[in-house]
Amino acid sequence: MKLFNKVAIIGVGLIGGSIGLGIKKRKLASQVIGISRHRKTINLAKTRGAIDYGSLSVSAIRQADLVILATPVNSIIKIGLKISSLIKPGALVIDTGSTKDLIVKRLEAALPNFVGTHPLSGSERQGVINASDNLFCGSICVLTPTAKTSQTSLRKIKSLWIQLGTRIIYLSPARHDKLISYVSHLPHIIAFSLMQSVPRHSLYLASSGLKDTTRIALSPVELWRDILLTNPENTLAALEKFLNSLHQIKSAIIQNDAKALKRILRLASLKRQSLKPHR
Amino acid sequence: MKLFNKVAIIGVGLIGGSIGLGIKKRKLASQVIGISRHRKTINLAKTRGAIDYGSLSVSAIRQADLVILATPVNSIIKIGLKISSLIKPGALVIDTGSTKDLIVKRLEAALPNFVGTHPLSGSERQGVINASDNLFCGSICVLTPTAKTSQTSLRKIKSLWIQLGTRIIYLSPARHDKLISYVSHLPHIIAFSLMQSVPRHSLYLASSGLKDTTRIALSPVELWRDILLTNPENTLAALEKFLNSLHQIKSAIIQNDAKALKRILRLASLKRQSLKPHR
Repeated sequence: MKLFNKVAIIGVGLIGGSIGLGIKKRKLASQVIGISRHRKTINLAKTRGAIDYGSLSVSAIRQADLVILATPVNSIIKIGLKISSLIKPGALVIDTGSTKDLIVKRLEAALPNFVGTHPLSGSERQGVINASDNLFCGSICVLTPTAKTSQTSLRKIKSLWIQLGTRIIYLSPARHDKLISYVSHLPHIIAFSLMQSVPRHSLYLASSGLKDTTRIALSPVELWRDILLTNPENTLAALEKFLNSLHQIKSAIIQNDAKALKRILRLASLKRQSLKPHR
Repeated sequence: MKLFNKVAIIGVGLIGGSIGLGIKKRKLASQVIGISRHRKTINLAKTRGAIDYGSLSVSAIRQADLVILATPVNSIIKIGLKISSLIKPGALVIDTGSTKDLIVKRLEAALPNFVGTHPLSGSERQGVINASDNLFCGSICVLTPTAKTSQTSLRKIKSLWIQLGTRIIYLSPARHDKLISYVSHLPHIIAFSLMQSVPRHSLYLASSGLKDTTRIALSPVELWRDILLTNPENTLAALEKFLNSLHQIKSAIIQNDAKALKRILRLASLKRQSLKPHR
């Protein structure tokens, strides 16, 4: 089902590349244009079949009906503002950033048909080399419409993400940033922090427990630096709650309080059991 | 290769049951006796082929050449002391507990041929129902001999664990407890604590990042309560180091210090890359 004529993807990495592959496989657009700062990325995206043609310049978006901002989170606003004078009238624009509040505020002021989206399909892998036409299948995509969002735009964007295989969840941008700080930003801080604190000379004893707990410390460093700095209030609030929980366990151990420790572990374990297994 | 005539396993759960299955599959003993407080466990262990016969009483160990203490960590010492008047002369005794210092100190004083062992093959699964003859294949078993350990006993125990598929690492009991607090006890505290702090209403957004980071919060609660309370000094020291690392990340976010944050994340990520993938 063709949803768009020309789609332009700015930033052809894991997410942008997978969107391109997904659109082309399902024939959701006549043409996919990829824009990157790196000629090598464009060539690889073409070889992989994620885009029909590529450009080093954002001006290549002029003919697009849909522009997808899939660059790292700290450049989304800058690029979004830059294209505002270039896009053709009526064109939709979405982003795929991991934080939403600031991006949506700034870009819906500059772009008439902007919808914030966040596919929860990131990975410690990166780059178009790891892109896949089914990266999004079975995962969640959060859409963050506001009072300014056109219902027609929203319907088309919803349709796009459903075709790419995601379930749709609607959240306000602020609510998204608050919840995602707990389920994504906090776990990343913890994984990086745990790796920082484990002595190198103990690593030869690491089994699957430590490995799974720190898998996401393999995530792209600059991307995560920027995500954490783009959502500081929520991230710090989540971190404070986690520190409070750690201090409860610490106290129970210091006081040798088996009853209190069991209660904390049991409630945590029950909550963990309520999470569905991976897709 | 037969290493023992009769082997008695006290505690026929995931670990004890898997040792039984492994011994029987590889014909490492003529007979495996299982001892449990629960008739149901004995019956299940027999049905699964993990033991030849079972008993509700530890006195069933009288004829064993090897006694394996595979109960939860807080009952190992008590049971070890109890069997000291029952074992036949020359019989070997090992335990499989997750902490070693206290257990080895107490049991090598009471049992002439005791060797502390710790197979790093625990799982969030539990019970003989989940036991497997290859649970230990490819994983590490730490042996914690001391000056009192007989070299003949140590050689036989090493041989047993190698036959069961593990790589052997030798550590003093104290060193074991220190290193394992980082690679195992700390990650468990973190997983439980993260689950405690994530609000229930955000869980529907959880993707693989949160799930992997908290998988070990599915581990048996009472077992982990006891492990943490059996190794408090080391666990608290590891926790302190982790708290220090969290505070560094917190400061970098508060001060919007992109450079410091990148440095922390990068070093953590590089250290994580040095871990080999799961077996």
